[in-house]
Amino acid sequence: MTTSDSAGPYDADLMAAVTELGAAVRDLIGTTVTTTVGAGEIRAAAELVRATTPLLAASRRPASQLPALDDPTSGRRVYNPVSGIGSPLAPPLSIRRVEGGRLGEVAAEATLGVAYEGPPSYLHGGMSALLMDQLLGSAAGAAGLWGMTARLELDYRRPVPLETPLVLRAAVTENAGRKTVLTGTIATAAAPENTLVQACGIFVQPRPELAAAYFGSITDASGRHTPPRRPSDATATEQD
Amino acid sequence: MTTSDSAGPYDADLMAAVTELGAAVRDLIGTTVTTTVGAGEIRAAAELVRATTPLLAASRRPASQLPALDDPTSGRRVYNPVSGIGSPLAPPLSIRRVEGGRLGEVAAEATLGVAYEGPPSYLHGGMSALLMDQLLGSAAGAAGLWGMTARLELDYRRPVPLETPLVLRAAVTENAGRKTVLTGTIATAAAPENTLVQACGIFVQPRPELAAAYFGSITDASGRHTPPRRPSDATATEQD
Repeated sequence: MTTSDSAGPYDADLMAAVTELGAAVRDLIGTTVTTTVGAGEIRAAAELVRATTPLLAASRRPASQLPALDDPTSGRRVYNPVSGIGSPLAPPLSIRRVEGGRLGEVAAEATLGVAYEGPPSYLHGGMSALLMDQLLGSAAGAAGLWGMTARLELDYRRPVPLETPLVLRAAVTENAGRKTVLTGTIATAAAPENTLVQACGIFVQPRPELAAAYFGSITDASGRHTPPRRPSDATATEQD
Repeated sequence: MTTSDSAGPYDADLMAAVTELGAAVRDLIGTTVTTTVGAGEIRAAAELVRATTPLLAASRRPASQLPALDDPTSGRRVYNPVSGIGSPLAPPLSIRRVEGGRLGEVAAEATLGVAYEGPPSYLHGGMSALLMDQLLGSAAGAAGLWGMTARLELDYRRPVPLETPLVLRAAVTENAGRKTVLTGTIATAAAPENTLVQACGIFVQPRPELAAAYFGSITDASGRHTPPRRPSDATATEQD
């Protein structure tokens, strides 16, 4: 689920450029939400941003076409809004497998800035939910049990501080065919055993007829039909 | 909870500039995650973005200081990552009170782009949670019952399509002093009665000693101590 452990080959030069742009826009966002310069300077910055967008808008993909750098079978999704290296919305979380851990166990470290704020100086409660949903989904993927969120429950024990190193963890607790139950936590790196947010989720792999209805038009950059799937589905799907 | 129904006065010229920059960076993000131009053009765009950021970085606020345009008592938070007009992360949702509706009832419309994607062509499950948490919190605020998320439960009945007009709703279902129970839904505008995602949340106003610990250092732009609070707390807090 991270760019480093993915299976498929990719254009390394394009990946470097996408990584560079993701980082630049992310930094611009962090500055945008904390700047105290005057209206004139803010307008000047907006003008420069508007002059940049057309360079990228010259050629765009539709939502039905995956990015050229993606490899959905390994979980490489460069514009994922939580873990995508190219997504300016993403911190981005670098989610790694925990070797020798529980089934599908994954972990990530992050330090989140003011762009993610809810109550003053704390992480937005919904951002904790967004991060946890991604960790649970990545844990399902790490166990070869890709699915879509069917239920998500979060308990908020203490507010999650901004600008503070955090650790996020998730693992599979139950595997029942198409249905997978997962749990996850958020804590500070300084007190990793002191859970701030606890999550429990149920992820479900849609039945073939539903998956066909949801993802029938999805292609990769070369136009080949590329629905999300579990690695164990690969043989069957190759014969489509 | 929106800029239009807020109580406090603000610098209209600064608000216009912040709105303009938020829109420009948001548009840049949507283009960044869908562009198919080559690595050279992507690097050129990154260079322009990096040249823009220093204009805004010339003067910044710390996380403990609210933005000059914010009015936390009325709920005006211009960089809120869901509803903030100045937040490039936010769609932004314009959350409005439903006149004559249920207690604290609020609604919003939104059409979400590829930047918010989870499964191909659908909204990230965690993004549904983020949006719902904000709607529930806004409903609490609309009822004068500000609190922090203590528990959030989401049921995902059908995937939420991208690039499709959506309606989001929330209201208070139970008010028990510091604790407020809320529910909310996401549906398409074309089929508003067909709930795609259902949310239930418990929001809690921290007890005074906890609130003091959490928000003791929070100030507005002029340096005045400005913790989040309910309108009913205003008289007591003015005497701090």
